[in-house]
Amino acid sequence: MVTIRDVARQAGVSVATVSRVLNNASASQKARAAVQNAVEKLGYSPNANAQALALQNTDTIGVVVTDVSDPFFAILVKAVDQVAAEYDKSILIGIGYHQAEKERKAIEMLLRKRCSCLVVHAKALDEDSLKAYLNNVPGMVIINRTIAGYENRCVSLDNRRGTFLATETLIRLGHQRIGYIGSNHLINDEIERRAGYLAALEHYGLPNIDDAIVQSSPYFEGGEEAMINLLSYHSDLTAVVAYNDSMAAGALSVLNENNIRVPEQFSIIGFDDMPIARYLIPKLTTIRYPIDLMAGYAAKLALSLVNEHIATPLHSQFNPTLVRRFSAEKNNVAE
Amino acid sequence: MVTIRDVARQAGVSVATVSRVLNNASASQKARAAVQNAVEKLGYSPNANAQALALQNTDTIGVVVTDVSDPFFAILVKAVDQVAAEYDKSILIGIGYHQAEKERKAIEMLLRKRCSCLVVHAKALDEDSLKAYLNNVPGMVIINRTIAGYENRCVSLDNRRGTFLATETLIRLGHQRIGYIGSNHLINDEIERRAGYLAALEHYGLPNIDDAIVQSSPYFEGGEEAMINLLSYHSDLTAVVAYNDSMAAGALSVLNENNIRVPEQFSIIGFDDMPIARYLIPKLTTIRYPIDLMAGYAAKLALSLVNEHIATPLHSQFNPTLVRRFSAEKNNVAE
Repeated sequence: MVTIRDVARQAGVSVATVSRVLNNASASQKARAAVQNAVEKLGYSPNANAQALALQNTDTIGVVVTDVSDPFFAILVKAVDQVAAEYDKSILIGIGYHQAEKERKAIEMLLRKRCSCLVVHAKALDEDSLKAYLNNVPGMVIINRTIAGYENRCVSLDNRRGTFLATETLIRLGHQRIGYIGSNHLINDEIERRAGYLAALEHYGLPNIDDAIVQSSPYFEGGEEAMINLLSYHSDLTAVVAYNDSMAAGALSVLNENNIRVPEQFSIIGFDDMPIARYLIPKLTTIRYPIDLMAGYAAKLALSLVNEHIATPLHSQFNPTLVRRFSAEKNNVAE
Repeated sequence: MVTIRDVARQAGVSVATVSRVLNNASASQKARAAVQNAVEKLGYSPNANAQALALQNTDTIGVVVTDVSDPFFAILVKAVDQVAAEYDKSILIGIGYHQAEKERKAIEMLLRKRCSCLVVHAKALDEDSLKAYLNNVPGMVIINRTIAGYENRCVSLDNRRGTFLATETLIRLGHQRIGYIGSNHLINDEIERRAGYLAALEHYGLPNIDDAIVQSSPYFEGGEEAMINLLSYHSDLTAVVAYNDSMAAGALSVLNENNIRVPEQFSIIGFDDMPIARYLIPKLTTIRYPIDLMAGYAAKLALSLVNEHIATPLHSQFNPTLVRRFSAEKNNVAE
């Protein structure tokens, strides 16, 4: 890290002069210009870690999310903000946009802004980089990903169990030909959710069906595309498990346009239980991802790591649960 | 504002010593403790405005929104972040939660964090407070509200024109008995949107109908409640204009549960054109609120106000437009 000594050397002035310029105290025009040039050239930030540690400044919790316009992350941010407010702190947000370099930039920005507590959602950044940050930043917590060796600072959900539950629910309703609509972002979530679907089929002795797994972008349009493809391959599926509620909504729209009635003729179960699930017609049966609870837990954990007066929250395992609404019913289609 | 001189006086040390402590350079244990006590006692922040101005630090755009878990604000934040990225800057977010004191706290936090550019959505804070901030912070821009005397730093939409357009569209489709589902948050948006509905009825010579305006919370549940109330009052309405898409979604759900087919028997038009509008069945006809364009414009404007090298964007008036989907059709109900 660039220090105030480096700036002084570069500017050809004393450390005290650099301090005076940075704190807007009296200094000659010439010294001011030299310091400012050195600061710019070296990318020195008087707000970086050293100062934060010197002042034990923990008034701000930093949050890294993938994309705030996705309700999943908006709920995450809100939950962290509510914990922050409880402890009279503020939050700062960095956005990673599914890209490793942007995730790194977001973390660095928050550190420069003196956040000693971080709640980080980073799926693209490699494990070694995250380990290095976890080593250097004692108040950093990872959400929705597990880093080996740092399990007690990671908060995540058993995705596999979630889709197992969804698939099992459909099987118990008499469905035997069940498709899976997955994400084409090949992150762990997709791998685990697909594995849960396959595990349930195997557990109940149902065969895999060729081309019953389709992947597309994890949004409404991707759900539309995936459902159209499933219908193109098959005329005899009676149910699908979807990677998330947005894809389920897209699938529902295609089923409706094709006059396939849900749940009378076709059942569908989503994942996440976003607000959208309650807006759909029929209201979507889905797997609840308790991101609000998990993000609140992560924020408290981060605070407790840098402040001995804040108790470490009891470690609790977060579980997916079934939210039964109206999009999955008994299979009425004769085999 | 508390200055470094005040800290030095309180601590009984020189300004240079305070600088050294704050920058983590060498200083005696005793001086360090005295400075830290003084910093805490006076609430001095080395990151406050003076330093930001001294270094012309504009690397961060601050954004104040009401609630990030509302897609409207999530889209706003994302649009500002995209402009920030274009200029290699970051964003910090403060959340106001519909409360004047929280809006004030959010603005103050962003200023302490050295944001010289602010895009502020504050509906609860009084006009005088906002004027004071606008006076003191040259890079502050207000979104979705107009402050007299600062029109060139305010970005807003003609709400009245939006609901006029929605109501006019229904009238031209042959509807004569049209209700209005409004918000019970009595902010300008509601007052202007209701006025647009009433102005269209008057313009086309349609009488007001008693109890055809109902208000509830501006969310899905509020839309459900409002639609139930409208159906309780009236059996002969053929269309409604809704305050926003969430309320329209709630209304749609109630119509569906009551076997009233949309658009065959009943038409409905929303407001905002949030992603949800495309997820509904039928896909919602709505009024587009170009919050993405407006927020991007506001961010560029804020940057241009503090940096002469960034051109002031051409002032453009933002207009609501009709997005025609499938929830509003010709009135088939005989008068």
